[in-house]
Amino acid sequence: MGKNKNGFLTLMALTLLISIATQLKGQPPTIGAQVFIEPDQNKHDVEVWFKLLEAHNMQVCRIRLFEEHVNQGNGGWDFSIYDFAFEMAQKYGVKIMVTLFPLDNSVGGFKFPKDQEHQKSIEKYIRKTVKHFKDHPALDTWVLQNEPGTNEYSRNDYSLPKFEKFKTEQKKKVWNGYMKNYPEFELFWRDYTTEYLGWIAKIIREEDPNAITHVNNHMLFSNLQQYDFSRWMPFLSTLGASIHASWHLGYFMRNQYTMAIAANCDIISSAAEPKPFWVTELQGGTNIFSGFNPLCPSEDDIAQWLWTCIGSGAERTIFWTLNARASGAEAGEWGMVTYQNRATDRLIMSGNIAQVLAKEKVFFEKAKTVKSDITLLYSPESMIMFSDKIMSSQFEEDILGRNKGAHIKSMLSYYETLSEMGISCNIKQMDNFDWEIKTDSPRIAILANMLSIPKEFIDNLYTFVGNGNKLIVTGLSGFYDENMHNVYMSSDPFRELFGATLEEYKFVGNNFDIQLTDSNVLLPAHMVKGIIKTDKASEIGTLSGNVIAVRNKYGKGEVVWIPSLIGLGSWQKNNDSFASFIIEEIKETVRQLPFTLLRHSKHVLLRTMKSDEDYLTVLINMEAKNITVGLEGNIDKRARLIFGGKLIENIDIRNIHLAPQETVVIIWQ
Amino acid sequence: MGKNKNGFLTLMALTLLISIATQLKGQPPTIGAQVFIEPDQNKHDVEVWFKLLEAHNMQVCRIRLFEEHVNQGNGGWDFSIYDFAFEMAQKYGVKIMVTLFPLDNSVGGFKFPKDQEHQKSIEKYIRKTVKHFKDHPALDTWVLQNEPGTNEYSRNDYSLPKFEKFKTEQKKKVWNGYMKNYPEFELFWRDYTTEYLGWIAKIIREEDPNAITHVNNHMLFSNLQQYDFSRWMPFLSTLGASIHASWHLGYFMRNQYTMAIAANCDIISSAAEPKPFWVTELQGGTNIFSGFNPLCPSEDDIAQWLWTCIGSGAERTIFWTLNARASGAEAGEWGMVTYQNRATDRLIMSGNIAQVLAKEKVFFEKAKTVKSDITLLYSPESMIMFSDKIMSSQFEEDILGRNKGAHIKSMLSYYETLSEMGISCNIKQMDNFDWEIKTDSPRIAILANMLSIPKEFIDNLYTFVGNGNKLIVTGLSGFYDENMHNVYMSSDPFRELFGATLEEYKFVGNNFDIQLTDSNVLLPAHMVKGIIKTDKASEIGTLSGNVIAVRNKYGKGEVVWIPSLIGLGSWQKNNDSFASFIIEEIKETVRQLPFTLLRHSKHVLLRTMKSDEDYLTVLINMEAKNITVGLEGNIDKRARLIFGGKLIENIDIRNIHLAPQETVVIIWQ
Amino acid sequence: MGKNKNGFLTLMALTLLISIATQLKGQPPTIGAQVFIEPDQNKHDVEVWFKLLEAHNMQVCRIRLFEEHVNQGNGGWDFSIYDFAFEMAQKYGVKIMVTLFPLDNSVGGFKFPKDQEHQKSIEKYIRKTVKHFKDHPALDTWVLQNEPGTNEYSRNDYSLPKFEKFKTEQKKKVWNGYMKNYPEFELFWRDYTTEYLGWIAKIIREEDPNAITHVNNHMLFSNLQQYDFSRWMPFLSTLGASIHASWHLGYFMRNQYTMAIAANCDIISSAAEPKPFWVTELQGGTNIFSGFNPLCPSEDDIAQWLWTCIGSGAERTIFWTLNARASGAEAGEWGMVTYQNRATDRLIMSGNIAQVLAKEKVFFEKAKTVKSDITLLYSPESMIMFSDKIMSSQFEEDILGRNKGAHIKSMLSYYETLSEMGISCNIKQMDNFDWEIKTDSPRIAILANMLSIPKEFIDNLYTFVGNGNKLIVTGLSGFYDENMHNVYMSSDPFRELFGATLEEYKFVGNNFDIQLTDSNVLLPAHMVKGIIKTDKASEIGTLSGNVIAVRNKYGKGEVVWIPSLIGLGSWQKNNDSFASFIIEEIKETVRQLPFTLLRHSKHVLLRTMKSDEDYLTVLINMEAKNITVGLEGNIDKRARLIFGGKLIENIDIRNIHLAPQETVVIIWQ
Repeated sequence: MGKNKNGFLTLMALTLLISIATQLKGQPPTIGAQVFIEPDQNKHDVEVWFKLLEAHNMQVCRIRLFEEHVNQGNGGWDFSIYDFAFEMAQKYGVKIMVTLFPLDNSVGGFKFPKDQEHQKSIEKYIRKTVKHFKDHPALDTWVLQNEPGTNEYSRNDYSLPKFEKFKTEQKKKVWNGYMKNYPEFELFWRDYTTEYLGWIAKIIREEDPNAITHVNNHMLFSNLQQYDFSRWMPFLSTLGASIHASWHLGYFMRNQYTMAIAANCDIISSAAEPKPFWVTELQGGTNIFSGFNPLCPSEDDIAQWLWTCIGSGAERTIFWTLNARASGAEAGEWGMVTYQNRATDRLIMSGNIAQVLAKEKVFFEKAKTVKSDITLLYSPESMIMFSDKIMSSQFEEDILGRNKGAHIKSMLSYYETLSEMGISCNIKQMDNFDWEIKTDSPRIAILANMLSIPKEFIDNLYTFVGNGNKLIVTGLSGFYDENMHNVYMSSDPFRELFGATLEEYKFVGNNFDIQLTDSNVLLPAHMVKGIIKTDKASEIGTLSGNVIAVRNKYGKGEVVWIPSLIGLGSWQKNNDSFASFIIEEIKETVRQLPFTLLRHSKHVLLRTMKSDEDYLTVLINMEAKNITVGLEGNIDKRARLIFGGKLIENIDIRNIHLAPQETVVIIWQ
Repeated sequence: MGKNKNGFLTLMALTLLISIATQLKGQPPTIGAQVFIEPDQNKHDVEVWFKLLEAHNMQVCRIRLFEEHVNQGNGGWDFSIYDFAFEMAQKYGVKIMVTLFPLDNSVGGFKFPKDQEHQKSIEKYIRKTVKHFKDHPALDTWVLQNEPGTNEYSRNDYSLPKFEKFKTEQKKKVWNGYMKNYPEFELFWRDYTTEYLGWIAKIIREEDPNAITHVNNHMLFSNLQQYDFSRWMPFLSTLGASIHASWHLGYFMRNQYTMAIAANCDIISSAAEPKPFWVTELQGGTNIFSGFNPLCPSEDDIAQWLWTCIGSGAERTIFWTLNARASGAEAGEWGMVTYQNRATDRLIMSGNIAQVLAKEKVFFEKAKTVKSDITLLYSPESMIMFSDKIMSSQFEEDILGRNKGAHIKSMLSYYETLSEMGISCNIKQMDNFDWEIKTDSPRIAILANMLSIPKEFIDNLYTFVGNGNKLIVTGLSGFYDENMHNVYMSSDPFRELFGATLEEYKFVGNNFDIQLTDSNVLLPAHMVKGIIKTDKASEIGTLSGNVIAVRNKYGKGEVVWIPSLIGLGSWQKNNDSFASFIIEEIKETVRQLPFTLLRHSKHVLLRTMKSDEDYLTVLINMEAKNITVGLEGNIDKRARLIFGGKLIENIDIRNIHLAPQETVVIIWQ
Repeated sequence: MGKNKNGFLTLMALTLLISIATQLKGQPPTIGAQVFIEPDQNKHDVEVWFKLLEAHNMQVCRIRLFEEHVNQGNGGWDFSIYDFAFEMAQKYGVKIMVTLFPLDNSVGGFKFPKDQEHQKSIEKYIRKTVKHFKDHPALDTWVLQNEPGTNEYSRNDYSLPKFEKFKTEQKKKVWNGYMKNYPEFELFWRDYTTEYLGWIAKIIREEDPNAITHVNNHMLFSNLQQYDFSRWMPFLSTLGASIHASWHLGYFMRNQYTMAIAANCDIISSAAEPKPFWVTELQGGTNIFSGFNPLCPSEDDIAQWLWTCIGSGAERTIFWTLNARASGAEAGEWGMVTYQNRATDRLIMSGNIAQVLAKEKVFFEKAKTVKSDITLLYSPESMIMFSDKIMSSQFEEDILGRNKGAHIKSMLSYYETLSEMGISCNIKQMDNFDWEIKTDSPRIAILANMLSIPKEFIDNLYTFVGNGNKLIVTGLSGFYDENMHNVYMSSDPFRELFGATLEEYKFVGNNFDIQLTDSNVLLPAHMVKGIIKTDKASEIGTLSGNVIAVRNKYGKGEVVWIPSLIGLGSWQKNNDSFASFIIEEIKETVRQLPFTLLRHSKHVLLRTMKSDEDYLTVLINMEAKNITVGLEGNIDKRARLIFGGKLIENIDIRNIHLAPQETVVIIWQ
């Protein structure tokens, strides 16, 4: 269990701190799809869907169990349509993940009870449902709630008293007589989410002590601050995510979608460790009206996305949806079968990939994703401040650095650039990182425009570097503490670590360049120029006579500090020089990776897995043109193509030809 | 009386089902203007306005009778300023249409009572006013309310209990245990509007049993779903519309305005039949601050718009306004006279046209508009779903097909293209169409992107085609039933009619082209590609190996089905190939028309009238350049120019020269 | 005291009409900065700040005295952190302006009490604070409230009863049975602001009868209608403004900022007369998140802005801020010292300028700004109507003339064009202008698109012109009276004055040109063409056969009337011909000025001061390139450079070279 920063929920969390069976591994990654069960369907159709799952190598499905369909309102409960689905699942060898869905009329479901009575009604539904299915052989997992995380916090009679309690407890802890911008409601909401999900898990386990529990988070890049993963994991068996190109990838262009899906996987995978992570929803069919950026995935998309999830270590990937729902806000959309229940090219592609997994069972049974020792860190406080607390968050802005997303996009800029060099990394929240680590090869932690570094992590930063690791700190990182108090005018807490401090920021404008002197790189920067006052650090960059970048040895480690927004600078422009800067700083650390890309390759994704002594590489061309990609390999193995390869005759590791949008998977053994 | 789908209001409607004198015909179309009566005016000015009406051949005017001006608040009522207006009207031979306007302070008036007491106060005002003027010889018509139709539905203490009653009754009728997206509030609102207008009419008739009653609807393209015309007609003598270029034509470019005015006329004319229709408000003067797309009509605009209304069969056209109002939100705007009460070029033009009507009295007394046997159909359910129910209606969208207007714009795309070929058509709501018709020459009904086809019309569609008529169905037509339930996965109700069914939709993007194989036309389409599974239909279009268009013989008739959005595709791009497609499908049906345009002519409008054996054509050039237009005539008559013709020496039916923005009117006898 | 139009507040105003010492002059302009005092600071830092003030020639500072810091909540009050600041101020010879800041958690402070209890709590805080510091030798001024003026009027239990009272009193006065669009809430709010500020002043004086009182208004171009300056001056010693490039200059481009700051100064200076005016906040440091248009001032900006304030006659200019605040919405932003309390280039520049002032003490002690006899007039009614009352104010608009700012931007178009010819003018509200003036040389008053001219000023306009002065009236000026009643259809009140009246407006579109016949200028105009009916005026402009501009002699004076929007026309396009038009109309009046610019010079600012028989000119190049500017001088003096002049060797009055962004100050003696 992660740091319990504030004592809130301790009692409940302890109650839940029970042993949960988490070892689901020992088989290849599983692929499945959402089956939509609705009252009007005929039994023939339902059977056909489960038959289709079997035919396309899907051993698992997810259903949404609508209270609306089973609660007869008169005290009676009729589960018959779901009973039949379970029966069919069993018949065709399919396991069922059940998403609990208490009475509601929104498309995604409410997130919190409206009042005490509502909570009681929810509890009744959960107990009835779990009791009914808990012993069914087809039952696999209880999904506590569909997609926790809300766009708007609702201050109602039920949440406000809880908030009052939170405030009282917080004030005792953090109050220093001057707490103007402490993001208390937002942090309360985070705790409230944890409390409520924990409560659902508790109810389930009271009925089904062996329950496998799961939640699928969504909108990670904007909602992460609501998800206190390290405090959820005690009551969860696995952690998951909904990753829909059409809903969740608004920060990205079409040819970045697969990379963005990889980032989603790495966030959830990092948060779930050591428990497994699943991709609980992956877009399987077309949008028409539901989805911010509608599209119909091609079979190439399906291959890219699915192999990305597998290569990222997802033990399960569940498509949304097998059959389209017929009523409600997504009616007729998202399906992988036609309205006549024939498999589309998308379902066929998924089935083919599942066949490959089955064929290469020996490799995949023990396969683990290989990641570098680089971790990108994020802080919920920074996300909240950029979204809700800084003044410009209220303005319509065309300056990226002044609004929602400025922290996460900065981090994603590193992620994409690393990814285009074939370097996979971890993405972790500050409180879920092993700050004490001591190893021979230095770890790297990157703080990208982390506006707020809470005080409690200051010592960790010193320890991490002191132990011989490397910290890269850029943008407005550390400008505020958790109370939005500016630290440079008072405690100046990084001065010894950085060997320098901040003189001032000057607002420059949307884009400008800074010259790095040791690497001779001209780096795009954004918005503010951070001017450094050096104590003992080495100056490694200047602009108009000001020092703007330094390197400092501290203990056995090193810090690189560039207080200008270089992540967002490169995010908005070409990231070639950003890649040069990064590779120079990380080369020691990534030398140990079995595979990287030979050069910075735009819109190429590499995922690497290891199984005993064998390796697997997933290589994806996200562009609509032929490309040739080179791998830098540190291992001496024979290559065997197991997927894709339209343009490949013999595998030349330094010249791998990829067709437009193609995914190529190679086993090295 | 149209279909009374749901039993609601039956009692009231029956009460109102009284015989109403509707025969107002037997004279040429009448032209008039709104006279604004306000407390501060001097009598001289008022007399001058009525004198101006007479001088410019206006035999009718409309006034707004503000309760604010007459209710003295202390129990006393002072109608003197309106008495004087009536006196002047009588003196100058002008009839008065009175718009009832209970106490309010908005520019257009409230639409519903706030509460019971408010309704009582309204009733009192109506009774007082009607009683006062009902026997005045200058009185012509009571306009029940200015412009029914609201932008926002107000859920208040007065409307909500009515809504609860509606829900109860609806549920008994349509409830199938699964009615998630039933647009109940919107449909309630529609009934509520009917109920309230009916109530006003009842009150008026209780005071003035011979009352001529009228309402002027507005914002037709976005508000049609609120207007249940077939249930209004029993209590109305005539139906009307406000058609203001500056307020109501936001879907159009400046050089489409006259065509859009024609479409407004055809909607109201189709709804009013067999009763007369009037254009109750037509923009006569400049906007400054009031109006979304401000403009000052030129005299050419006045000619185009007025002849379009006349040619469309409007028995009356009333300009807004003769004199500008001096106070309130339109103060100093919209007038046709200067602030010194001199006639502007706009009033002079109107007067000249009225003179032509008087001169050609013999023709116009019996003139009827000639329309083709083509009907464009719309469904309020589809309008509501696109406006309020589909998820993307909540997003800021640049994809036309995902938002408000997607149904109506699709229909208008057909309308404009037909219009540019000189083919006038009917525009009808589904419940106001003669589905049983059997004639020698096949009728054509077009369902353009009619997202929701309510179940009750399924049989009608079969009957219509079975009887030998032709149905053209395109876009997302029929994707949902009235409950927003997708039909292709369940009842599949069109399969026999279409000889095919829908396999799936694929979201493609804003624009793409589909190839029609029988007509060799490359047709622009929009947003989604609808892939067809063919049973016995002929395939007439393909895209990347998928069937996307079919033709099917059913009974004695035929269906053409293209489930991609070809209306919106052409709406956004060039409509040349859309015209080729349409003309091919309708050529049998339009052969009987006396006149059409020789070729597809952009921004040209043709209206045709018939009077005994004589014909009249209105030809309008909406462009700011000289053009030459050809007519295809099926009649052998001598042409006589009665209006316009700057560039015409002798009329050559195949080469008629029009000056920029010119309107040319020819009588063929 | 200005006109007390409506009797409201009379009693209170009389009570406050006490003699206030206003004579602060007799020394050169003073420069200072805001010092931010916060609880977490150490005393060393506080002392350093006051030392820095002294070191950079700042004899005055402003502090915000947060009740939050001093009210201990338990009945106790602890002023110690402020006591220390006062002590340090005294030690380093600095005077303190104290901004009262009752308990609040917004960045700028609330503007009105929430309820009676809140008001009592505010009173208690004010009495405690004033009593505590009133006898301290470092105390200088009480600032009543930070930045009066709100974006949104709050209708709450405290304001609404006051509004009801206001309405009753207003109705007695202006009610004519037809007051639909009378901006009553907005005008009430204006009175309410006056009443509340007056109340604060009264409380202060009850504790400190010799108090110097001040307020700093902000957002002048959009909030002016809320500030009833002529009724504030009785209870204020000086009037001030916050002028932040990043917050308040949204109507302007970057290279107009200095000119816009001059306009702010001229508004406040005109309103304060004969009392002094101060620039209470001038941006001194960088924004990051706080500010609509963020920037970090360069040292050139500081020179331009500070000399503009000085040249405009500001007796004080206070930068915002010396030290950045550490907590809250501006944390770490706006400061003139680094986070380590070293002076930035901005503070050094300010100090240098203060040194020049000290060195030229003899000149500056008696220096007064020289202005032309031209006054630009504005009416709050017009501002309110454009912001809230006309229909298009509710639309998203790209037509400037139909929205907020249409009056003020028209005025600013004149201001800028005059300014670019080196002609400084007054900017006054209608009720604060000397309409009775009779002088040998004609005064000029300009009414630029003043949509509403209240009836009470009609006689004034006749008197002003009759006495031999000149009135320039353009745009929609006078279209409405104060009730938004259109006057041309009824009282036609300007007809004799203009020798003409308005025939009608025609909406034309965004831009068009009108031809002036006497000056042969083709003048850009905007939106509507105002067509004139001439009685005895001379026609001086036509468009398509209509008269659109006239000149009329009335009494001893003259009126020029162009009812089209020429201010906004030139504002959006090149203003060269506007300059030609203006110079022609004003040349008699500006002949007496000691200095003007030789020609219309884009983005050049000239300020002129006089001290006994000597003169000073401030010449500013707002462009980023070298320019040469010529002065037209009417005096015969020797030039002596006292600031700037990088490119100047000898001063040639007709060829003064300015470096990019340079400010050059010359004394002529």
